[in-house]
Amino acid sequence: MAGNSFGTVFRFTSWGESHGPAIGCVVDGVPPLIPLSEGDIQPYLDKRAPGGSRFVTQRREPDQVKILSGVFDGKTTGTPISLMIENVDQRSKDYGDIKDTFRPGHADYSYMTKYGIRDYRGGGRSSARETASRVAAGAVARKVLGEDVRIRGALIQIGGMKIDRNQWDDAEIGNNPFFSPDPSVVSGWTELLDRTRKAGSSLGAIIEVTASGVPAGLGEPIYGKLDADLAAAMMGINAVKGVEIGDGFAAALLSGDENADEMRMRDGKVTFLSNHAGGVQGGIATGQDVVVRFAVKPTSSILTSRKTVDVAGNDRDIATKGRHDPCVGIRAVPVGEAMMAIVLADHLLRHRTLGRG
Amino acid sequence: MAGNSFGTVFRFTSWGESHGPAIGCVVDGVPPLIPLSEGDIQPYLDKRAPGGSRFVTQRREPDQVKILSGVFDGKTTGTPISLMIENVDQRSKDYGDIKDTFRPGHADYSYMTKYGIRDYRGGGRSSARETASRVAAGAVARKVLGEDVRIRGALIQIGGMKIDRNQWDDAEIGNNPFFSPDPSVVSGWTELLDRTRKAGSSLGAIIEVTASGVPAGLGEPIYGKLDADLAAAMMGINAVKGVEIGDGFAAALLSGDENADEMRMRDGKVTFLSNHAGGVQGGIATGQDVVVRFAVKPTSSILTSRKTVDVAGNDRDIATKGRHDPCVGIRAVPVGEAMMAIVLADHLLRHRTLGRG
Amino acid sequence: MAGNSFGTVFRFTSWGESHGPAIGCVVDGVPPLIPLSEGDIQPYLDKRAPGGSRFVTQRREPDQVKILSGVFDGKTTGTPISLMIENVDQRSKDYGDIKDTFRPGHADYSYMTKYGIRDYRGGGRSSARETASRVAAGAVARKVLGEDVRIRGALIQIGGMKIDRNQWDDAEIGNNPFFSPDPSVVSGWTELLDRTRKAGSSLGAIIEVTASGVPAGLGEPIYGKLDADLAAAMMGINAVKGVEIGDGFAAALLSGDENADEMRMRDGKVTFLSNHAGGVQGGIATGQDVVVRFAVKPTSSILTSRKTVDVAGNDRDIATKGRHDPCVGIRAVPVGEAMMAIVLADHLLRHRTLGRG
Amino acid sequence: MAGNSFGTVFRFTSWGESHGPAIGCVVDGVPPLIPLSEGDIQPYLDKRAPGGSRFVTQRREPDQVKILSGVFDGKTTGTPISLMIENVDQRSKDYGDIKDTFRPGHADYSYMTKYGIRDYRGGGRSSARETASRVAAGAVARKVLGEDVRIRGALIQIGGMKIDRNQWDDAEIGNNPFFSPDPSVVSGWTELLDRTRKAGSSLGAIIEVTASGVPAGLGEPIYGKLDADLAAAMMGINAVKGVEIGDGFAAALLSGDENADEMRMRDGKVTFLSNHAGGVQGGIATGQDVVVRFAVKPTSSILTSRKTVDVAGNDRDIATKGRHDPCVGIRAVPVGEAMMAIVLADHLLRHRTLGRG
Repeated sequence: MAGNSFGTVFRFTSWGESHGPAIGCVVDGVPPLIPLSEGDIQPYLDKRAPGGSRFVTQRREPDQVKILSGVFDGKTTGTPISLMIENVDQRSKDYGDIKDTFRPGHADYSYMTKYGIRDYRGGGRSSARETASRVAAGAVARKVLGEDVRIRGALIQIGGMKIDRNQWDDAEIGNNPFFSPDPSVVSGWTELLDRTRKAGSSLGAIIEVTASGVPAGLGEPIYGKLDADLAAAMMGINAVKGVEIGDGFAAALLSGDENADEMRMRDGKVTFLSNHAGGVQGGIATGQDVVVRFAVKPTSSILTSRKTVDVAGNDRDIATKGRHDPCVGIRAVPVGEAMMAIVLADHLLRHRTLGRG
Repeated sequence: MAGNSFGTVFRFTSWGESHGPAIGCVVDGVPPLIPLSEGDIQPYLDKRAPGGSRFVTQRREPDQVKILSGVFDGKTTGTPISLMIENVDQRSKDYGDIKDTFRPGHADYSYMTKYGIRDYRGGGRSSARETASRVAAGAVARKVLGEDVRIRGALIQIGGMKIDRNQWDDAEIGNNPFFSPDPSVVSGWTELLDRTRKAGSSLGAIIEVTASGVPAGLGEPIYGKLDADLAAAMMGINAVKGVEIGDGFAAALLSGDENADEMRMRDGKVTFLSNHAGGVQGGIATGQDVVVRFAVKPTSSILTSRKTVDVAGNDRDIATKGRHDPCVGIRAVPVGEAMMAIVLADHLLRHRTLGRG
Repeated sequence: MAGNSFGTVFRFTSWGESHGPAIGCVVDGVPPLIPLSEGDIQPYLDKRAPGGSRFVTQRREPDQVKILSGVFDGKTTGTPISLMIENVDQRSKDYGDIKDTFRPGHADYSYMTKYGIRDYRGGGRSSARETASRVAAGAVARKVLGEDVRIRGALIQIGGMKIDRNQWDDAEIGNNPFFSPDPSVVSGWTELLDRTRKAGSSLGAIIEVTASGVPAGLGEPIYGKLDADLAAAMMGINAVKGVEIGDGFAAALLSGDENADEMRMRDGKVTFLSNHAGGVQGGIATGQDVVVRFAVKPTSSILTSRKTVDVAGNDRDIATKGRHDPCVGIRAVPVGEAMMAIVLADHLLRHRTLGRG
Repeated sequence: MAGNSFGTVFRFTSWGESHGPAIGCVVDGVPPLIPLSEGDIQPYLDKRAPGGSRFVTQRREPDQVKILSGVFDGKTTGTPISLMIENVDQRSKDYGDIKDTFRPGHADYSYMTKYGIRDYRGGGRSSARETASRVAAGAVARKVLGEDVRIRGALIQIGGMKIDRNQWDDAEIGNNPFFSPDPSVVSGWTELLDRTRKAGSSLGAIIEVTASGVPAGLGEPIYGKLDADLAAAMMGINAVKGVEIGDGFAAALLSGDENADEMRMRDGKVTFLSNHAGGVQGGIATGQDVVVRFAVKPTSSILTSRKTVDVAGNDRDIATKGRHDPCVGIRAVPVGEAMMAIVLADHLLRHRTLGRG
């Protein structure tokens, strides 16, 4: 049934396949009178765009967004904002094995069991190309949140190689092709990915997204908890297999004494002495930084031959040819930021219904 | 805004506070003609009930469920099923510090920032007591799923002490107070928790829930993915800080060759040679076991004094008195099973809308 | 699928059958800090209660509401408000023909085709008894709206006998058993209904519900229009067959010159010179009175024998025995008021998401 | 908040303004493997298109629909279907009075109170142009319903002039510019509308939409009743002020004896002897024809000067210039058909969740 919308008050509906004429989304629920233009959205799409370096897929898409509705005289009007991105790099080609054979680790087989039909061209609807719609919607969400809420994503691990958190510098994130906050890991990652790419293989990664300036009180108990919605948002990104908030799985190792974030008044304001919780208690934002991490599996489009079956029920072997992405986790950084923005914008508007300012 | 319902087609709405007259839920969307009685629900509540051992809170609640509607002549009628559990252990008492002081690590402060009012008695709505409603709804979900779908949860780690997966035996799970599938860890956990309890502290835990017999095809791309819904379901359980599917965070360490679950025809059926994906590809069930793990933080109700503030904005110190739960993760096992059942039942019914049998 | 909830931000879920142990509803999305007690709800239930006069069913139910959650220290807390009304007049009896035979004009046959099972006792879920839950939720909605919004329903027609609108006096509505605003029609209606009752038949009616003080701006284009939501709310009341807003069907007879509600500034405020629109333009409230009318068919429980069939597929004749309601439209007045309150409260909270005060 | 989606399982989201670059909708929840092409949609758009006769607005739009996603190899794939119609007749012009002055009877004033901004060009989002999206989605809904469900709309009254129901002939509906099933009224309507048009005024109308072949069992009690959803669907069409099902308001005039639709077995099947209910009992389809009527007010764009105010709070007079539609009710016929198809398709898919075939 209908499953292509996300959010409750700030709500977007995404559409489009990798090799169709276009992809896009309709963003509904945006309050009126917010300045918005294509120039507010395009930079985030450019950040996500393929072709940026030899470490991401070489598909060349300008990913030019058009606003088709909902904006008048440079401001939102409260009506739905239709965003469209034309697919320009959908070269007609021989799809070969992909047409009839299920690529292991891909959604090919599961789509076929669900629908009995699939658009096999470039992964169809299950292609990571759909995340461009999320990034576009996320740019609108940032405008709803305003400048006091700052969201930044970073890559903190590729394969088994982690950043050194002591070297963290937000300003470095934009200075390397990996969104790494630690410049000292860049040469190591470069070498690792070059080796992986030459071997025709791929690697997983871990991304951390942090939001500062989130107003305390956002989040709805019991089944619209801020952290539960963030978990769904991140787990729903292509290839993500794990999500954690604050200390996450490591919290299992702490004692209750260590884990409880103590409080003190500072300059007349409630201040936390630690942030093990990642900014969410009982599903509701505390005003601390909201910290989410998610794990991306290695892409399954690899040059090595793998065992599989075809639609006719024959054993087959398959290897991906052509464009190949050694670490899809890199491009997941702006997507994770977008999903954070969307969840926060939605909860900001949901919270307003209480009339608590 | 309204945030106390979960699910789309199979949808339940939970209500009630820890120290009110009762808690309960309304389960809507259940197909008709399914045999259902209180006897189908009670065993799961008993499994979750406090007071079962010295490792869980000593609050004594019989947790007796009543079906108030939706069942006629022993069968569901397709109308909403109202389930109620009376609170019998809500002794009137002096709430002391809890009334005005925010317990660190609890939802006390965040509820206050959201609503400007909170029922401080026993945690009010944020109490783990609410999970009894989930367990009751989960029992109904199991009836919807039928006997071919088998769901089993297990505790696999307390603090830093893990089970030995080579010792896994499903039959052992019910034979110890920890829901451990590995009998060899029981004495170690017993000692660890006794020590923790005496120290007035608490420990976190990791739970694994597996569903077998899940039909391939369940799950909705793009924003109703089976794994995203499971992530929200588990992250929404009290005190959960992390969720993973299949290999989860460990998938980041694999190469694409290792991670892709290869396929072969066996006896005319598609068979997977591994299950790194945890039974979900592209958000859709593959027919393999669906495997979810989640991390529960150590409870914040500890006897050690912690720094905090009160509602008037004064620095205060607080320690929990009275009943105390050294490892809330234990009781999360039946709750995790219930949420798995609910998500699967919902997707089973959603999938039917496609008319694909 | 799940279909027992109404509203989006202010959202209630109703449950219960006519002859089960209780009925009730869970009201979610109510903002915190609103004073609320059972005493705020009970008067509306009393107004709807059967047994008030010889013109309505003689079933005697005290309809005593209990608040089971969501209220603390006399105020709402923002958590779901569970309301329960026990069924005390569910005398065990021989259901006779009703068990196996479909009463014409009732939901007996349609429920059976949908579900393959039905609770035939007193109409089960399709009984007008369910409307007590709406009235209870409506009382909560009135508290959300506050005292500036005034809602009043009136009966304006029974069978072919209409009130004289020139005699309309709001103060008279509570002074007769019909909720008539025109005292001059009361003797005529009394005689008409006595005659109908003695003949074992029934009559339809038309109800008008007006809300004053509705803030301009409530309502969501395009598919959450205030008038569309009101139409669904009223049409969903048992036995309702028609709904109109403002001039309604009579608008078809006007010319565009006559129908357009002209405006002028009066004391610095926009003032309308007429209200053909019934307070809604383009789906959004204009600030004028919101005026809705709906038609209730004559109840189908009549003493005259009617042709029908039974569950085994035999031709049968059936006549209702025992309690009998010559004009169900009378008791629909407080139900219509409740649905008006619920729709307005929902839209009041939805509108807040725009941040426009 | 988000209010531009309609339906639950079959769900479409509409976007676009009258004078923007395009309008369109995303249709989600459509089952896979249904043959669908632009040729299945275009005829319904052509039927709704302006410019068809001198009785409807002379705006010339080819209304050419494009399918941008969700269809592969001529069949639906289960993914969202994005439909777009470019606006080609959005001539740049001086909007004159309309820019700052509220047209009485239009949504100009109510949009301004809601949003504080409005796209005044051609009515912006509140333009009847939006109904093209409904018609396009309705064409998809018809494919979901299949050929056994037949939907036909007809105009049965313009101003005070009604058709003669004894002359009803479905085959005539397409033979005149009014969608009249009674050829004998055509000359009268022609004369009436010519006179109205020359006077610069407009007239209201009543439309009847009937669906045959609707499976018994569709519809969800209590708050997703088939008739309540139809009421919302029709009341939500621009300029509609009243909706009725079956006998509708006339049911108030009947006695219970007359109104109850009696049943008999005929050839082994349950057969109704009348259809006062309009095919819906207790909110659920009985298998009879579903019959809905709705009233459209006269358009407020008239050449006669009317009193109004402007955005600065001055009294003003305004008359519509240029294109002018003497009876918007005519073009509402295909829109009403589309909304019927959409509601039925949604309920067909919702009903499937019960697993009752």
